[in-house]
Amino acid sequence: MNPKKQPAREDLIPLWQMLNSFHPIGKGIELHLLKSIYCSSIPKGKYLLRNGEVSDSLYFIRKGLMRGFIKEENKEITTWFAMENEMVSGIRSFLLQVETVENIQAVEDSELFAISYADLNKIYEKYPSFNITGRKITEFHYTSAENRAYITRLHDAERKYALFQEFYPQLVNRVQLTYVASFLGITIETLSRVRAKTSARKKTP
Amino acid sequence: MNPKKQPAREDLIPLWQMLNSFHPIGKGIELHLLKSIYCSSIPKGKYLLRNGEVSDSLYFIRKGLMRGFIKEENKEITTWFAMENEMVSGIRSFLLQVETVENIQAVEDSELFAISYADLNKIYEKYPSFNITGRKITEFHYTSAENRAYITRLHDAERKYALFQEFYPQLVNRVQLTYVASFLGITIETLSRVRAKTSARKKTP
Repeated sequence: MNPKKQPAREDLIPLWQMLNSFHPIGKGIELHLLKSIYCSSIPKGKYLLRNGEVSDSLYFIRKGLMRGFIKEENKEITTWFAMENEMVSGIRSFLLQVETVENIQAVEDSELFAISYADLNKIYEKYPSFNITGRKITEFHYTSAENRAYITRLHDAERKYALFQEFYPQLVNRVQLTYVASFLGITIETLSRVRAKTSARKKTP
Repeated sequence: MNPKKQPAREDLIPLWQMLNSFHPIGKGIELHLLKSIYCSSIPKGKYLLRNGEVSDSLYFIRKGLMRGFIKEENKEITTWFAMENEMVSGIRSFLLQVETVENIQAVEDSELFAISYADLNKIYEKYPSFNITGRKITEFHYTSAENRAYITRLHDAERKYALFQEFYPQLVNRVQLTYVASFLGITIETLSRVRAKTSARKKTP
């Protein structure tokens, strides 16, 4: 097995910034993280995680865009997107260390920083204050999941797309429409109709 | 304003058990919680939270059953259920202290223990180890939310109902079918057909 490639300290600046925005992490935790984190890269179209595997690491996206999806028979249902400076994992599988029903795929060439489940829990045990960070990040992702659930639950396609534009402005012109349609739980035809209507409305206020 | 009624220490035994199952809380935190927690009761059909309000407290259900729902025009869409020994709040509203889009209603007469946002955060600040508990509970609820999202995302009604039976065996004969149907995102007619099929299959294996 090749040793895992480790990042340079300065490459991790966006990660330190993200962590410190929740709670100051301090030098000890920073050094411990630096020793534990490894680099990973996923070319466009390739998978970070497949249905049936156990999600062994938590990732921070340095560059790129990923999506989560589940399969129902042969149909893919996109469940979330995550881009640079965001975190990603098969979260239920990672937290409970059980097999996932999810797939995670790179929508663009992506570079990631990763930490294993075992290494993350060593830091939680050694530094109680890192649990403040962990609690706040988990809370933040939980509220994002609630936003996704809200969009999914609605029936009205126009309302769904309006919320997509509100919650994910950076994704509107970045993600394939087939993925957006399945994320919203509507057909590609309905999505095209809604987008045409929305853009016509913008032109004639 | 009437002073809020506080629980007796022994009434909180199920709460201590729940908390200790995640991480030992210790006497200091237990005493601080005892001083902060207040009692609340919600008769069947009444609301704990309404769309547009800010969720000011986090609740532990001592007895009863609650549901969360959102409204789309005049239609109610049930988004979750919670029963005795489980926690409940308009979680996004509570964590971010913003207005909720959710409603929370008592499905049965319910008795609750509550702690305010301000009081909970005082405990997090005073006792760093309580953040371990908070992190683990948030992670647990996040994984439950992922289970709900998974059911919601699927299209096949039989698969949805099979997962409902698997994830929520205690709810199958306890909750009105209209709520179950809207939780699964299917019509009451489809739910009745699926239930008839499921029970016929059980009789003739």
